[in-house]
Amino acid sequence: RPYELISTVCLFFCVIRYTNGIALSGISGVAHDKMTDKAVFTRDKVLTIHTMNPTVKKVEYAVRGPIVQRAVQIEKELKEGVKKPFTEVIKANIGDAHAMGQQPITFFRQVLALCSYPELLKDNMFPEDAKNRARRILQACGGSSIGAYSASQGIECVRQDVARYIECRDGGVPCDPDNIYLTTGASDGIVTMLKLLVCGEGPTRTGVMISIPQYPLYSAALAELAAVQVNYYLNEDKCWSMDVSELERSLSEARKYCNPKALCVINPGNPTGQVQSRQCIEDVIRFAAKEHLFLMADEVYQDNVYAEGCQFHSFKKVLFEMGPQYSNTVELASFHSTSKCYMGECGFRGGYMEVINMDPEVKAQLTKLVSVRLCPPVPGQALMDLVVNSPKPGEPSYNNFMKERTATLSLLAEKAKLTKEILNTVPGITCNPVQGAMYSFPKISLPEKAIKEAKALGQAPDMFYCMKMLEETGICLVPGSGFGQKEGTYHFRMTILPPTDKLKILLAKVKEFHQKFTKQYS
Amino acid sequence: RPYELISTVCLFFCVIRYTNGIALSGISGVAHDKMTDKAVFTRDKVLTIHTMNPTVKKVEYAVRGPIVQRAVQIEKELKEGVKKPFTEVIKANIGDAHAMGQQPITFFRQVLALCSYPELLKDNMFPEDAKNRARRILQACGGSSIGAYSASQGIECVRQDVARYIECRDGGVPCDPDNIYLTTGASDGIVTMLKLLVCGEGPTRTGVMISIPQYPLYSAALAELAAVQVNYYLNEDKCWSMDVSELERSLSEARKYCNPKALCVINPGNPTGQVQSRQCIEDVIRFAAKEHLFLMADEVYQDNVYAEGCQFHSFKKVLFEMGPQYSNTVELASFHSTSKCYMGECGFRGGYMEVINMDPEVKAQLTKLVSVRLCPPVPGQALMDLVVNSPKPGEPSYNNFMKERTATLSLLAEKAKLTKEILNTVPGITCNPVQGAMYSFPKISLPEKAIKEAKALGQAPDMFYCMKMLEETGICLVPGSGFGQKEGTYHFRMTILPPTDKLKILLAKVKEFHQKFTKQYS
Repeated sequence: RPYELISTVCLFFCVIRYTNGIALSGISGVAHDKMTDKAVFTRDKVLTIHTMNPTVKKVEYAVRGPIVQRAVQIEKELKEGVKKPFTEVIKANIGDAHAMGQQPITFFRQVLALCSYPELLKDNMFPEDAKNRARRILQACGGSSIGAYSASQGIECVRQDVARYIECRDGGVPCDPDNIYLTTGASDGIVTMLKLLVCGEGPTRTGVMISIPQYPLYSAALAELAAVQVNYYLNEDKCWSMDVSELERSLSEARKYCNPKALCVINPGNPTGQVQSRQCIEDVIRFAAKEHLFLMADEVYQDNVYAEGCQFHSFKKVLFEMGPQYSNTVELASFHSTSKCYMGECGFRGGYMEVINMDPEVKAQLTKLVSVRLCPPVPGQALMDLVVNSPKPGEPSYNNFMKERTATLSLLAEKAKLTKEILNTVPGITCNPVQGAMYSFPKISLPEKAIKEAKALGQAPDMFYCMKMLEETGICLVPGSGFGQKEGTYHFRMTILPPTDKLKILLAKVKEFHQKFTKQYS
Repeated sequence: RPYELISTVCLFFCVIRYTNGIALSGISGVAHDKMTDKAVFTRDKVLTIHTMNPTVKKVEYAVRGPIVQRAVQIEKELKEGVKKPFTEVIKANIGDAHAMGQQPITFFRQVLALCSYPELLKDNMFPEDAKNRARRILQACGGSSIGAYSASQGIECVRQDVARYIECRDGGVPCDPDNIYLTTGASDGIVTMLKLLVCGEGPTRTGVMISIPQYPLYSAALAELAAVQVNYYLNEDKCWSMDVSELERSLSEARKYCNPKALCVINPGNPTGQVQSRQCIEDVIRFAAKEHLFLMADEVYQDNVYAEGCQFHSFKKVLFEMGPQYSNTVELASFHSTSKCYMGECGFRGGYMEVINMDPEVKAQLTKLVSVRLCPPVPGQALMDLVVNSPKPGEPSYNNFMKERTATLSLLAEKAKLTKEILNTVPGITCNPVQGAMYSFPKISLPEKAIKEAKALGQAPDMFYCMKMLEETGICLVPGSGFGQKEGTYHFRMTILPPTDKLKILLAKVKEFHQKFTKQYS
């Protein structure tokens, strides 16, 4: 609206401001709204883009960035009847399995319903094992209600179940429930650990090594904490594996301007979909030990391994297999979540972290810090419990649970293969196998003309490409620049989550778009 | 365990360290465990109390502090059969209604069960209005599952319902759903707002005014953000009301060493249980406008008003009644939660905040910031929706809902009165009426001898008192020093939540203990 400042009125008020301070001060101007013919009161804001926290301004999170905002807009436009060259937006930007049609595990949801409304325990429609799990969780809650706060570290019996699960996963390596912290999704645990680590100023400011490409939670959290982001590059030519020589290069450069204290690894990889070999993990642990780095292992995709010959090795298991000179000394925090794997329950915000070799005084500080937020959501804790304590052979729900779990994972494996195969048929797109996780991160070659046009618009070239793809095809991907990539290379991340038929359409459209785009700018 | 350092072995390893760097470096020492006759590998930790984030060390949170940790220990000891002068620990330290036996609202839990396991929609055991609410929530979720991520700001239809609820609560003052952000409990919203506000260094560092006594989330969040905590005192003699003259004193002193930018108010009060008058709120708003302060109104106890003549007035409503020179200019964020009021659903971590007159650029930054954590827990969002869109007259669940709601609130009103009356019969305890919220915050006089003994132990005198009470009676309260209080005064916070019969026992025990304690130290 056009405001016209009436300076005489303003002056009048300013005078009053000093003579009758209480009633009218705080108003720094009065404007006149031509449309409504009314006086409009204005005042300098306390909180503006110039007075706000500068570290928050530096935060970026591509997975829900401008391209996704535009996708939401386009969806609204479609609903309003705006004509587009497509009829629906396909969101392949985020690992949101249920939104893409994946069905929840029946057993998990039965237990959650029982916990929510325990009257249902009297009903005959639920299997006994579901009822038993619900009773056990409820007994561990204050007043037998999931509406009570839990201990800040998480419900004790859930932490015990997590510990048993980890022991079983890692072939008997012991796990102490006291080292388990339940979290509000894995993100919460990762941010909390980073918060503990960061200190110092200038050249002693804490540096944290993260992979490039990375999941942008890391860069966002480091920006917010004003920590130094230390990049190490994954080797795209070797299927996004980690090279110790690259870690060494990155570290020695970083030591010139900050104090690198931690090394973060995402395995299976996000956004890159690789599964690191046991040897690679051992090398990384040895490097961390040698260089005195705290290890953070983001292992939320631990059940999402598809490629033949690939296997998930937890950092903890490898650490313990390397003998006491490592297992008694290297500090490690590892993270898991209810959001990924075969369950895909993102909305519940469940997760845990395990801390190994953490200094007891620091652990007390961690426990104190998490207490300020009272507790992670209890339904998410209950769900985490079900994931680590799923139906056992012989229990009534076992067969159906296994059927559902296997079906989901097989379908994901099939889609992982399909995605890689189809993308690699497109000239100008090269794509590593999706060994695990839920994403493909293909390299795209962009014509010089497109790069120039993007730069003229102040956009990253792959943002320009993805935005154009969205407008023309309705497909929502995230540009590689949102995750980081080697200078001069371009990528996008796409999830393999859409239902197979939709995924095929999506891949065909990507192919068609890429060819058209290349032609247009050649 | 006693470790004996074997320096020769250590030297041996140190040599190897430089000749065979990869295999053995990172070990900075090898010790010998006498008990097991084995070598023990040691290494300086990366993360120690000396190298960790110093702002985290400054965080304190009394509501779950040492006294509560001791209470948990005592509970374990009782279970193990350790003899004590009591048979159970009564936790009156935290506003955790369900843990104290309050029953959840049936309608809310029915809808949550339906959302968790939509197969139940086919069942005849649920009322139609519960099914309709569940269908509406599920339709708003990706893939019709509460396991999908929601928009980071919260599910759109829930935000619309919140806006309608606020309009209705505030007698028609308009509310824009775009100004609503769903949160992970109110704490999350408060911390997020503080995070936006804080900047500057030294004398320009952001100051935030908080009441003393305060809810320690505020002091904890400010410590973590390294912001300056600016205290203003509530007037205990006038039932913990706010005085503008005290706000002025506090502000003008603070301006000498920081840049005060925000004023936080908790109404109804935590830990002090007062309900601020409409006049007082108007005065505070005028003060904030005059002094150019961002207002934060913590209104999570808005339904918990018991005292005759008291009424809840939202800051927003009063702001809009003061006319456009205020309603168009004063920046306000207000907070609500599913954890308190008549529902007491703490475990779900549901909540919302409304922002008024926020600069659009800052709002864009806020939206970006919340996107990094993906979304608040969806079950908590669903619950928040039910709170703001509870059964309407004529719907099948209305009567039962109203019966449950009224019963809970009446019982709380009765216990508020009872607590104040009994505490005021104890010589040396004086207690303001519990007008609202869930807490009594009585002043206790402590004998000089007790104060000396406490100080000799390095304890706050009221911590010494509460710890003794816990050991002797099993009652867990929080000392006033955890919330802040006028120098030389002592208090404790106790919740009014225990069931009436237990509350009576608790109050009788407090009385007996206080008399005994006073006698012992006189």
